[in-house]
Amino acid sequence: MAAQSSEFALIKRFFTRQPIKNPSTRLGVGDDCALMAVPDGYELAITTDTMVENVHFFAGTDPEQLGHKLLAVNLSDLASMGARPVSVTLALTLPGVDDDWLAAFAKGFLALAERYSVDLIGGDTTSGPLTMTVQAMGLVPRGQALLRSTAKPGDFIYMTGCLGDAGLGLKIKQGYNCANPGAALKRFNTPDPACEAGQALIGTANACIDLSDGLAGDLGHILAQSKVGACLNWDDLPLSADVLRYIKETGDWRMPLCAGDDYELCFTVSPEKAGQLSMECSRIGVIESQPGLRLNKSGGIQSLQVKGFEHFS
Amino acid sequence: MAAQSSEFALIKRFFTRQPIKNPSTRLGVGDDCALMAVPDGYELAITTDTMVENVHFFAGTDPEQLGHKLLAVNLSDLASMGARPVSVTLALTLPGVDDDWLAAFAKGFLALAERYSVDLIGGDTTSGPLTMTVQAMGLVPRGQALLRSTAKPGDFIYMTGCLGDAGLGLKIKQGYNCANPGAALKRFNTPDPACEAGQALIGTANACIDLSDGLAGDLGHILAQSKVGACLNWDDLPLSADVLRYIKETGDWRMPLCAGDDYELCFTVSPEKAGQLSMECSRIGVIESQPGLRLNKSGGIQSLQVKGFEHFS
Repeated sequence: MAAQSSEFALIKRFFTRQPIKNPSTRLGVGDDCALMAVPDGYELAITTDTMVENVHFFAGTDPEQLGHKLLAVNLSDLASMGARPVSVTLALTLPGVDDDWLAAFAKGFLALAERYSVDLIGGDTTSGPLTMTVQAMGLVPRGQALLRSTAKPGDFIYMTGCLGDAGLGLKIKQGYNCANPGAALKRFNTPDPACEAGQALIGTANACIDLSDGLAGDLGHILAQSKVGACLNWDDLPLSADVLRYIKETGDWRMPLCAGDDYELCFTVSPEKAGQLSMECSRIGVIESQPGLRLNKSGGIQSLQVKGFEHFS
Repeated sequence: MAAQSSEFALIKRFFTRQPIKNPSTRLGVGDDCALMAVPDGYELAITTDTMVENVHFFAGTDPEQLGHKLLAVNLSDLASMGARPVSVTLALTLPGVDDDWLAAFAKGFLALAERYSVDLIGGDTTSGPLTMTVQAMGLVPRGQALLRSTAKPGDFIYMTGCLGDAGLGLKIKQGYNCANPGAALKRFNTPDPACEAGQALIGTANACIDLSDGLAGDLGHILAQSKVGACLNWDDLPLSADVLRYIKETGDWRMPLCAGDDYELCFTVSPEKAGQLSMECSRIGVIESQPGLRLNKSGGIQSLQVKGFEHFS
């Protein structure tokens, strides 16, 4: 890590806590590399996500919420593999040093890190347009990570939590007048990664993904990589009263299927293992051998052709 | 990794090779996380570096050279810990999709990756101002990583390669008229990380750092973290004929001491282990218990107060 002493001072001032929380962290911030131990019988799961101002978040977004969300989206990727989070690196490109902004960003980031004993083990701080990249690392029992490619026809499809509340939060930020905006905005601004649920699915789920880009698109990745299809039941989708009211008022029933940012887990389970599920979740459909994604709604079955947000499209 | 299908297609098209080269890579690009195995007796070394247009490189820089350099600076951090590189993630923020640019960038990046059997195991592609973050991971024998904090008074100070040629390359790009610009420009544009040297220093060197920000500043990190001082011998510095000519013409003898981007290793070795050194390197000074960095030049000893490039300063 090529950061200068002033940058190290910056990182240290806002992001370094003592002591290291996770026993797998052998060396944290301050040398050319961090060092991490991986216990016998485990593999390392690794993910990275970038957030860019005016692309992934509005200019002027509350920095504490931003710090939380940046870490949350990465922990959500670990959760979707069934991995227990251990450590992260943070690459921050900043237009300048704003102490108040950095303090609030660090507060949001580190509060979530602390909740899961995640160590910030390194990073790079550079000047430039506001861009933030986190790489998160976690441990998963060897050979047991939850993949996208292993769903099987007949599997039940489940998801944790509710669908579309983060999408409703975005609609509210874009001007939709919601009678009760607080819950949806909270889901959009400060999503909670389903870390415990992901780890609990090891040995039970056949395939898993996190809902970052919308159920239809994310489940679509499972279908494509598993070479299967699926049918969802509209009546079984876990929709909050706020989302149901939004649909009633706008007619936009597709929103919860294609809006992103929910950061819940969508996973498939063989019927004979369904009784092993220990977490709160909703059974929303079934994996089929026929390719494509279908929706059973109002007594008819329709093909779903929805996409999430795409860069460069 | 929250990339959409179109982004995956982008990453796949330019950055995915088959098959995976490194036996420690269990799962590469395409799922929520990559998976990596760490053999018994090893630890994982992790580093991250960001490069921003107009900060770390000039707008219009040759994308093939940029791809090489982005990976090289991260592999250099692994080298400085004595780690063998295994895999990297790449977070690319791009103003748009330019096929020619991406193809050339990928060519430079992947050619260097191939040389060291480094797998690109994941990434994120987002739209925004040109910013690139790599996280590199490597394996180092457990408990034997080369640190900055373990130099000892009496250690000889060594470095690999030559000093200041990359700095001369930058001067040339900024307008200095060099009779023989090719070698210096190559060092600036496409540095080679000292991967083999770093691994060979395990068990021999007491402390090590890579020269990214200039010898004085980088050695200064070793001194600060080891709580020691040092004296360098000017006559022992490995200066190329080009750098010597630059100094003669400009009088700027400080340049090789404070210019960055050499990506050579600077390390300390106990005198009794000096005979174990197997790589080409130059002995340039000695660690002393008296704090501070000194230079023995023209028969006198002077205190060195030089700094590398600093963001936000």
